[in-house]
Amino acid sequence: MNVNGKWYRAIWPDEHDPETIQIIDQRKLPHRFETVGLTNVEKTIQAIREMYVRGAPLIGATGAWGVYLSMVNMEDGQDPHQYLKTECLKISSARPTAVNLEWAVSAMEKTLLAQENVENWVKTAWVKAVEITEAEVENCRQIGQHGLPLIEEISRKRDGKTVNILTHCNAGWLACVDHGTATAPIYAAFDKGLDVHVWVDETRPLNQGARLTAWELGQHGVPHTVITDNAGGHLMQHGQVDMVIVGTDRTTHTGDVANKVGTYLKALAARDNNVPFYVALPSSTIDWEIEDGVKSIPIETRDPDEVRMVWGLHDKHLVDVLVPPENSPALNIAFDVTPARLVTGLITERGLCKASAAGIRALFPDLSK
Amino acid sequence: MNVNGKWYRAIWPDEHDPETIQIIDQRKLPHRFETVGLTNVEKTIQAIREMYVRGAPLIGATGAWGVYLSMVNMEDGQDPHQYLKTECLKISSARPTAVNLEWAVSAMEKTLLAQENVENWVKTAWVKAVEITEAEVENCRQIGQHGLPLIEEISRKRDGKTVNILTHCNAGWLACVDHGTATAPIYAAFDKGLDVHVWVDETRPLNQGARLTAWELGQHGVPHTVITDNAGGHLMQHGQVDMVIVGTDRTTHTGDVANKVGTYLKALAARDNNVPFYVALPSSTIDWEIEDGVKSIPIETRDPDEVRMVWGLHDKHLVDVLVPPENSPALNIAFDVTPARLVTGLITERGLCKASAAGIRALFPDLSK
Repeated sequence: MNVNGKWYRAIWPDEHDPETIQIIDQRKLPHRFETVGLTNVEKTIQAIREMYVRGAPLIGATGAWGVYLSMVNMEDGQDPHQYLKTECLKISSARPTAVNLEWAVSAMEKTLLAQENVENWVKTAWVKAVEITEAEVENCRQIGQHGLPLIEEISRKRDGKTVNILTHCNAGWLACVDHGTATAPIYAAFDKGLDVHVWVDETRPLNQGARLTAWELGQHGVPHTVITDNAGGHLMQHGQVDMVIVGTDRTTHTGDVANKVGTYLKALAARDNNVPFYVALPSSTIDWEIEDGVKSIPIETRDPDEVRMVWGLHDKHLVDVLVPPENSPALNIAFDVTPARLVTGLITERGLCKASAAGIRALFPDLSK
Repeated sequence: MNVNGKWYRAIWPDEHDPETIQIIDQRKLPHRFETVGLTNVEKTIQAIREMYVRGAPLIGATGAWGVYLSMVNMEDGQDPHQYLKTECLKISSARPTAVNLEWAVSAMEKTLLAQENVENWVKTAWVKAVEITEAEVENCRQIGQHGLPLIEEISRKRDGKTVNILTHCNAGWLACVDHGTATAPIYAAFDKGLDVHVWVDETRPLNQGARLTAWELGQHGVPHTVITDNAGGHLMQHGQVDMVIVGTDRTTHTGDVANKVGTYLKALAARDNNVPFYVALPSSTIDWEIEDGVKSIPIETRDPDEVRMVWGLHDKHLVDVLVPPENSPALNIAFDVTPARLVTGLITERGLCKASAAGIRALFPDLSK
């Protein structure tokens, strides 16, 4: 989407140097827009591990391009198969939890092994990395097209008046190469000329809403307002939210949705005020095993200092400030699970479905068990 | 309550100089503990306006002591009645929304006017300011005693295992001279030796939970953990919250509760998980006019920079950092209203009652209309 008036993706091959893969250093957003060129596996792993890039689909695409870079840097005299195996293992273990990373690296490895002429591996890796990247983009584009009618319908009911959409965290193009998941229908509606406005939950503790979602919406020109995570309930009580769209890190095949912590509270408020609550996702995030998301999805707890310290811009410098007392402990729960009963519907690359085992199975009979 | 092992109130006459009233500069908590001596009306107004002191009961008490200080500083030759009127008006308009301020200053003025001998006004003002302050303390103490059995009952049911209590914002002694409202039953339980632990919502945007509640609980030795406002729902889903206690800025006589924004979201989560949700309040915060709190209680919106900037400690300095993009707008909603249907009960200075017109009327027949 647009940055300073120019179309960007979250990862792309350098237009002048095909042996360099460009990414945005998302750690510094929104206060610095810096791109970084990846030229080898070590830099790629660093970018994933130190969260220059984040968001499961983007991590997957970055991993795929990492395998391509390993091919670019393969030296004469190395055993190609042994080298490929070692490099893929290094890349796929850069972060342990992102399923997409392992999936993408594994897809690259299989494709290369199927190409018997090792001299073609660089080219084969390029083609496959492009394919993986484009598949992510196309899934997101489809999510946008399938979600668009929901916004159009509200716009019609409101006689073209502003449609107010609330989102939590960043399920935007920064997490997904392009379009995003939760943001895809919003960009589609905005680009079609609909009057949309986004309430951006700041999304404590890491403020991905205030830092990333606000930035990407602002750069693309989408009207938006940053609010505290506490404010959404009040806005819904007073008719100021027409719909909620969020992303998800894992969705059970029964429709329970694990997403950034606080999503559940917004779903409760939406239900209490008859506001539709949608979850946008590519089918790759569906967990076909787990039955009860609240009981069974493992929830990550992270460094308490992410709660205690807040990062931002002070006097042209990027610094952390400590908020609570130095000796007060904190707990940092990263996700929560919204039960299917609170979800109005799922927006997928194949269309809408109910957040239920039957609804999901009907749309994905080939994937369900 | 305790600070560095010494018992403090949030306002007190200097023990060596009865013409100086001491307060804690709460703007700097938790990173600096500094007391400030008020010696005249101007300093008192500054302390209220610039939020050295905050919390309706404490603002009221500070206003009362301000009237006392005006008497201390009355010069010979002034028309005492005209002077009293002018000074009271100045003090009571220091902040517009705190009902307690106007009430306390008005009570001081009436008491002085009833004292015909102007030479006794300093002494009369002292006595009345002490009375107002002690009444606040006694109300909070009673709230603590009436809330204590609720915690004791949970403790018994859990065979003495830790009782986990979640609170939002600061309804502690820092807001109320001593004991606090929401914290009063917690301090009573802790002081009695019960095993209690408090989940402290950080309470965006001004972080009164992380800054003030965590500080005062820590200073008094009460076990606590700071969490993001997003985390409470997850904790309740997993049985880690035994009860919620919050304060209130205004409660309708029908039981609707206006409190710091985000309270409503916690009440929804408590209901969804069968966690008791209590509101602690002195009867002075009951609004006997308004029927429907969600529709009719005016909700303050404040400076968007309170959302955009976060204040804390960096490298031994107290600084603000900007979180979202410089040009992203923000909306700062300060309060929300929790409908009576979500409130398990009210804890008042006269005991418990249901959050309903009938429940409140039965406990306060003399006050209800």
